[in-house]
Amino acid sequence: MRPRPSIRVQMKPISPKFVTFEGIDGCGKSTLIDELASWLDRTRVPYVKTREPGGTSLGEKIRGLLLDPAHRGMNRQTEVLLYTASRAQLVAEIILPALKSGAWVLADRYIDATLAYQGYGRELDPDPLRRLQHWATQALVPDKTVLLDCGIDTAAARMSARNHRPDRIEMEERAFHERVKAGYLDLASLDPGRFIVLDAEKPLPEVIADFRAAFREIVPAP
Amino acid sequence: MRPRPSIRVQMKPISPKFVTFEGIDGCGKSTLIDELASWLDRTRVPYVKTREPGGTSLGEKIRGLLLDPAHRGMNRQTEVLLYTASRAQLVAEIILPALKSGAWVLADRYIDATLAYQGYGRELDPDPLRRLQHWATQALVPDKTVLLDCGIDTAAARMSARNHRPDRIEMEERAFHERVKAGYLDLASLDPGRFIVLDAEKPLPEVIADFRAAFREIVPAP
Repeated sequence: MRPRPSIRVQMKPISPKFVTFEGIDGCGKSTLIDELASWLDRTRVPYVKTREPGGTSLGEKIRGLLLDPAHRGMNRQTEVLLYTASRAQLVAEIILPALKSGAWVLADRYIDATLAYQGYGRELDPDPLRRLQHWATQALVPDKTVLLDCGIDTAAARMSARNHRPDRIEMEERAFHERVKAGYLDLASLDPGRFIVLDAEKPLPEVIADFRAAFREIVPAP
Repeated sequence: MRPRPSIRVQMKPISPKFVTFEGIDGCGKSTLIDELASWLDRTRVPYVKTREPGGTSLGEKIRGLLLDPAHRGMNRQTEVLLYTASRAQLVAEIILPALKSGAWVLADRYIDATLAYQGYGRELDPDPLRRLQHWATQALVPDKTVLLDCGIDTAAARMSARNHRPDRIEMEERAFHERVKAGYLDLASLDPGRFIVLDAEKPLPEVIADFRAAFREIVPAP
């Protein structure tokens, strides 16, 4: 019997993905980001984690202006522009260079947050907001967006368990947060190929299992 | 001889004007703003003076971020967004309420500055910038815009005579300031009904005389 020729198995490299995590505060974004990060660690894939607003030296200063309860008189357009300024700097300084170098990017919030919070939440016309995001981010759209959908009460309970002091946005009335939650679901329904919507009302281990199952469809199982 | 009937002269009130002053640093904007302000004082017309970036509590903090030489790595889009955020707040908090109350507004820089500095200076496509300004300012266009046109060397000499320490924008190369100067003239040629272009190379008393003459066309002589 002739020996089988030795076959060198060439693993197809996974091209770096830009994955964003969205949802109201307290819904569990950080847990899922850590979950994906630990899988990337195990498979030795380089990645970068970012958060918004902030994530750069300038962006963190803009974050300070945005979340300071002293700025309650902030105009709606001003708020959009400051969030978007922080994002434009993050894209140029961190996200695009990371993707170019072959690293994944796991982002805690991105353009959908502005559409949900300022568009639906503050009831601003979404069309100018979309055009602005396209321009400010150099047209960079995420490969996948994980939306954690949970009720206002569940999110609030998780936040208060963390002994977290509410910032300017969190101090908004309940109706605002309801509009944001509904807005996120609306955005997901408009772009089903990009969004992975998870029921974040479930206990956390189940949410993680759902996340793994959904993510398996685009990359080898985490 | 019959006595002439007493005629009660009803002065036609001048509706409040929004006047912006544009030009590269050192061209003499402050002098003309003071000139118009003192005429308004004499005629007992209420007015508000503003400056950009800044002019509100939040805007002054944004100004600090924009002009700090530490932020030389600022992305072009980020820069536009921060200038525009400061402007949106100024319009909502100061300019619109002032005009509504019957006061004039004399503004040291406004939308044309973004078109000249970031559009022409940084070579960004002007169309998205125009749309952004329209949205951010709630479509508020000045009644008149006074453009002081002077050469880079004249402006630089006036600045250094003031012992002024250059900020992040002023530290830009000469070619940048040349594009801004040319850009301002281009903007004026596109909207001749709004712009009053003055030759600011002349000695200051002559510039002031030209300003008075030009302004006399829209309001009683200052």
